[in-house]
Amino acid sequence: MATSISSGANPQIKEIVKLQKSARERRKRQLFVTEGFKLTKEAASYGRLQKIYVSESARDDMAAKDWHKVLEHHPYEIVADSVFQQISETVTPQGVLGLAEMPVYGLDDILMDQRRSILVLDGLRDPGNLGTIIRTAEGADMSGVILSRESVDLFNPKTVRSTMGAIFRVPFYYVEDLVLAIEQIKQRGIPVYGTMMQGSMLYDEVDYREGAAVVIGNEANGISGQVSEVLSKKVRIPMAGNLESLNAAVSAAILMYEVFRQRRKDGR
Amino acid sequence: MATSISSGANPQIKEIVKLQKSARERRKRQLFVTEGFKLTKEAASYGRLQKIYVSESARDDMAAKDWHKVLEHHPYEIVADSVFQQISETVTPQGVLGLAEMPVYGLDDILMDQRRSILVLDGLRDPGNLGTIIRTAEGADMSGVILSRESVDLFNPKTVRSTMGAIFRVPFYYVEDLVLAIEQIKQRGIPVYGTMMQGSMLYDEVDYREGAAVVIGNEANGISGQVSEVLSKKVRIPMAGNLESLNAAVSAAILMYEVFRQRRKDGR
Repeated sequence: MATSISSGANPQIKEIVKLQKSARERRKRQLFVTEGFKLTKEAASYGRLQKIYVSESARDDMAAKDWHKVLEHHPYEIVADSVFQQISETVTPQGVLGLAEMPVYGLDDILMDQRRSILVLDGLRDPGNLGTIIRTAEGADMSGVILSRESVDLFNPKTVRSTMGAIFRVPFYYVEDLVLAIEQIKQRGIPVYGTMMQGSMLYDEVDYREGAAVVIGNEANGISGQVSEVLSKKVRIPMAGNLESLNAAVSAAILMYEVFRQRRKDGR
Repeated sequence: MATSISSGANPQIKEIVKLQKSARERRKRQLFVTEGFKLTKEAASYGRLQKIYVSESARDDMAAKDWHKVLEHHPYEIVADSVFQQISETVTPQGVLGLAEMPVYGLDDILMDQRRSILVLDGLRDPGNLGTIIRTAEGADMSGVILSRESVDLFNPKTVRSTMGAIFRVPFYYVEDLVLAIEQIKQRGIPVYGTMMQGSMLYDEVDYREGAAVVIGNEANGISGQVSEVLSKKVRIPMAGNLESLNAAVSAAILMYEVFRQRRKDGR
């Protein structure tokens, strides 16, 4: 049995707090935090779990939740409840979290994927939206997600939680130059569609069956000017009523599931 | 010029705090709080704004934002910045909020609407999800939203913000007995579809053109047992990968936009 960590000044505790707060720290260490039983178990099942932290009062739950195997194969620490509160980003922590290694992909993992269905995020800012989008991208069988450097960090604690595990399964790649990445997608023969108010075609009038990349813009400002110039086509999601826009995760879902619907009908 | 409120003990301030925190208080008074310039202006434009509260430092913004007319036609109070912090539910308040009257609808406003496209929420719990769903329902031209009594309060501050103004435009009705409401929908000749993992048909294999009600269940437990028994049909949103489910607002969006797509193609 590991000895219990009872002080917030413990270097491991300080490190976890840093990883929770700072995208830069996460990037530097290539580590992120998985909160809760489910996500931490997923990290283990994908071979990405480095270490587990369990609160004193959650210790007994471990047996009930069939965690013996996970604990046998990974180093773990018991943490005093008050200290666990400090490292948790959730309001009612389950009492378990993990340190996990980030998955690493190359741009070609996405560009060369045979599904030819790519999501592109141009400056998305809301962590919850991003997590929901990654979750939906898995459901809609997308090849992966390409993000501009200004987009919110995929390993933000709120984003990681919102992915519901998809973070371990959906390939992603941050690019310095999104215009260049879009040109590379087009060179593969995959048209790149952006959703914009001024779209010339409705999103459901486009034939996505030969492949499609879909660009979703920033929540407040939409797709940036530079990116809008290199799109194959601007498409529009029709809106009744007096709305200015739809939620970004909702727009992404409508587009991705339309691409998926067409591919399924076509038997691809 | 109104005199400035400088104490949190002011009865108006205490009342606003109560309205922000308590769904019961909101229901009793039939009032809710609109935060920010945009939403408060919308409340005014729909004739629902009772009173405006402006922080001392936001006072100068009012002229720049062309608020003269709104302030001319509504009573308002200036509030010390520190007191405004207490009544605001946002992290960085814009310095303006309104007391607004709730819109009131009858069940028939939804049941008799000619669009025959109804959203039904069975125990939805997340305020942000609910707001996003209301926003999407406006965009997808739905007749309105029927909510079970256990669903989260539509006038929760987070929900109100997430609707982006749709709260003033989408008819809604809370029912004590959701099974009874579903029977009433069916009596109008509108089939009621529920999204479930065990759905016998894919959501995009159903013909929604004669009308459709779509049931979205609780985030954790889905559609309740009683409700699932009275559905016209259980439908399924296909999911690739290893997901257990999609986000509730995403499921709702995919369904509502498929209904809307079919209606548009059909010219209705």
